[in-house]
Amino acid sequence: MRHVSVPVPPGEGRSYPITIGSDLLGAVCARLQEMQPGRRLFVVTDANVAGAGHLEALSAGQAVERFVIDPPGETSKHWGTVGAILEAMEAACLGRDTLVVGLGGGTVGDIAGFVAAVFKRGVPVAHVPTTTVAQADSAIGGKTGVDSTWSKNAFGAFWHPVGVFVDVTTPATLDEVQYRSGLVESVKHALIADAEYFAFLEENVGALLSREPAVLEELAWRNCRIKAEVVAEDPTEKNRRRVLNYGHTVGHAVESASGYGLLHGQAVAVGLLAAAWIEEALGWGGGQRVERIAGLLETLGMPLSIPGDQTVEALMAIMQRDKKALGGRPQFVLLEAIGRVLCREGQWAQPVAPEVVEAALKRLGAK
Amino acid sequence: MRHVSVPVPPGEGRSYPITIGSDLLGAVCARLQEMQPGRRLFVVTDANVAGAGHLEALSAGQAVERFVIDPPGETSKHWGTVGAILEAMEAACLGRDTLVVGLGGGTVGDIAGFVAAVFKRGVPVAHVPTTTVAQADSAIGGKTGVDSTWSKNAFGAFWHPVGVFVDVTTPATLDEVQYRSGLVESVKHALIADAEYFAFLEENVGALLSREPAVLEELAWRNCRIKAEVVAEDPTEKNRRRVLNYGHTVGHAVESASGYGLLHGQAVAVGLLAAAWIEEALGWGGGQRVERIAGLLETLGMPLSIPGDQTVEALMAIMQRDKKALGGRPQFVLLEAIGRVLCREGQWAQPVAPEVVEAALKRLGAK
Repeated sequence: MRHVSVPVPPGEGRSYPITIGSDLLGAVCARLQEMQPGRRLFVVTDANVAGAGHLEALSAGQAVERFVIDPPGETSKHWGTVGAILEAMEAACLGRDTLVVGLGGGTVGDIAGFVAAVFKRGVPVAHVPTTTVAQADSAIGGKTGVDSTWSKNAFGAFWHPVGVFVDVTTPATLDEVQYRSGLVESVKHALIADAEYFAFLEENVGALLSREPAVLEELAWRNCRIKAEVVAEDPTEKNRRRVLNYGHTVGHAVESASGYGLLHGQAVAVGLLAAAWIEEALGWGGGQRVERIAGLLETLGMPLSIPGDQTVEALMAIMQRDKKALGGRPQFVLLEAIGRVLCREGQWAQPVAPEVVEAALKRLGAK
Repeated sequence: MRHVSVPVPPGEGRSYPITIGSDLLGAVCARLQEMQPGRRLFVVTDANVAGAGHLEALSAGQAVERFVIDPPGETSKHWGTVGAILEAMEAACLGRDTLVVGLGGGTVGDIAGFVAAVFKRGVPVAHVPTTTVAQADSAIGGKTGVDSTWSKNAFGAFWHPVGVFVDVTTPATLDEVQYRSGLVESVKHALIADAEYFAFLEENVGALLSREPAVLEELAWRNCRIKAEVVAEDPTEKNRRRVLNYGHTVGHAVESASGYGLLHGQAVAVGLLAAAWIEEALGWGGGQRVERIAGLLETLGMPLSIPGDQTVEALMAIMQRDKKALGGRPQFVLLEAIGRVLCREGQWAQPVAPEVVEAALKRLGAK
């Protein structure tokens, strides 16, 4: 078992523990009751996670109040779902002494965190991520929220958990495409922060694809440390934290334009390649970077091009609504080398001329 | 014109200005653009406020993006309204560089503040309260939120404004019952913090009822200072800030049980009397307190009893769902004298035996 401590938000001098290991689920509730004595637990999960047996493992034979999101996945990640969960909590007479537990993938965690942020103006949340993408990324960092009709994560709050429990055996129940696409956030972490980690991924991709717990534990630990370090420095994304959006400007647009037919990781894979082509065009490429990234993503079975029915015009319009857009212009995080983000005049995200973005989109197959 | 500065939240060393005066509206947008350069303004208001000409006065001839809540009032204060406003902001391509302006009474301010708290995970808000209740209370302090099916302000966030503009001429357009019931929060402020202020209210109730701007300015200034002092000490209501809920435990229940047929101030008036009777029963009364409070509330035209169709049982059940209830038991702020809240073992809110609460409700006419 490994531990990482995330010091956030800096103003409050608070930190929260991330626990990483195998077969942890059964001990989580007892541990939370030690950490937050007297609180009533309320578990938010979804039908897939419950069906995989993780809710039962977490409950460990006890009756735990819960809300099971159904249908699971991005289609339920909207304002109405949050309202329904909040009303269910009211109906159960829950008060400010509630502790929300998010058990599931990125969608569950984002919804559970948002529910906790606004129920009775804020109660604590703990995350128990069960997917590769949630374990690598969404459970850490305090971002919560839901999608609008127009864009991803449009409405939400920064709400840091009181604890995160990463059980690396839970991704064993994921289907192959879910499992693989969740690994793309790990590729992103390596690209923005650690060239040696990128080489580790290239070397261990076989063990990763066969879901070896030891490698998954190593991965979770590296991801948590990278993410924790970035988030601690900038918990509400004023500047440096934007590096975590590497590949996400185009990624979010492609995901949204697909009507969420593409998984987040699949869309971000394309977004990482778009960023790499933009870097090439601006003279920041080199060292076979596009080829190495494309090679690793291909081994993971990710798409290397934008679906044929997506147009440059539609993608550009979606990017204008991006949360990080300023004055209607999307901002891009760019690398100067694998493991190193370009920082210009103190800014970690850069405006890019629309023609350059459009050229990258066309290169990847957009009409 | 008078100014009060509210230092919150303490961790961030930030403060925001409250400006109090007559005929301020036309200067607000320009002042906000000075305070928060480069931001796009988005005004949230309601049909009553727009109908009274305040939106036009605020816009000062300029095209300002806005959302007009219709129907106005508590019936629109729900999760769905917030979702509709957020989607309208997305449709208008607004980004993180938005500044939300809440123009209206308590409901508008609570909704506008909540919208700002969750749009793109948080943008700034400024409040321009136009009613007696909003000027005395809801615009200051950073509480935002909406009602659930079960209880008031069940879902929301703490989100402090960047500025508050109190134009004491705007309440002139309120109808008599709205105007008068809004003065109840001023009575509450005097009761919890300032015996001399209570005497001032008793002496100046005639000038108040004839809406003299000079007296309203004095009132706004005293209210802001009391509220700012309490909020600065405890911005997220961990303890002392609870004193601001004086009279609200029963008040919220009566308001909710009336199906919002009673105005907030009318319900709180009854709640203040319930608190006074509980204090009597527990031996904290005396000095003709109940009589003085009832006398002032009667001159203001407030109800002095609970509507005849409300039962003790129903009111007690609603109070169990109160945000401040702990383990299903509502907590009460109690006075030891006019101007002084009872603090026992460091706690500013106390559990009270259900029989004592029930007796007070019966005394006020509940079945």
